[in-house]
Amino acid sequence: MSVKHVSDVDATLVPSGVKTTRQVLISAEEGPHFAMRRFVMEPGGGMPRHTNTVEHEQYVLGGAARIGIGEEVFEVKKGDVIYIPANVPHWYQNIANEPFEFLCIIPNLPDTTTILEETSC
Amino acid sequence: MSVKHVSDVDATLVPSGVKTTRQVLISAEEGPHFAMRRFVMEPGGGMPRHTNTVEHEQYVLGGAARIGIGEEVFEVKKGDVIYIPANVPHWYQNIANEPFEFLCIIPNLPDTTTILEETSC
Repeated sequence: MSVKHVSDVDATLVPSGVKTTRQVLISAEEGPHFAMRRFVMEPGGGMPRHTNTVEHEQYVLGGAARIGIGEEVFEVKKGDVIYIPANVPHWYQNIANEPFEFLCIIPNLPDTTTILEETSC
Repeated sequence: MSVKHVSDVDATLVPSGVKTTRQVLISAEEGPHFAMRRFVMEPGGGMPRHTNTVEHEQYVLGGAARIGIGEEVFEVKKGDVIYIPANVPHWYQNIANEPFEFLCIIPNLPDTTTILEETSC
């Protein structure tokens, strides 16, 4: 590939997410070192607290969300740049009435997603 | 870093470009495998034909440009995804009356930019 439009790439539901889809814009087969994905979380959507075995470099394209990284919580919007180190627990919650959209780039290394149990009394 | 806004990152002129600035959003020191940069080419701006020793994975945030990759020429706009393999000649020319903005992610490997001579009769 050289050029493609984001609207031409299939979106698949993320099983561990809520109202969340993922598009692989540049796959591990297309790029030798890292893959570019786009996530869209509809209003009410998000992902529960989890870890990945690879780091995330992210850029917010639109919408707004509350996200947790380790013990910190942030509200993020268009133009925010996010770094999530490997193995650090993180979560996402759309807090707007529009889709929360972001790019997420990961290295071409084995990635395991581990959903962390919610603690409750 | 965990979260920063693109507007908080310094922009520097790209010496080999025309009316072109670069921001390092996530540096090679911050991310272990790849760096995220944002380029802005003002109207009339661009970069001459050149090669890099690393590949580029790019996402167009706004504006429009004509770009060359190898022997092919493309017109690109917001939402276009671009892959430029290492060592393949490429160039950019803003063709709109607004800034052409894109993300460009490169691996944390040595990168040499070589400007290619224009051929003329």
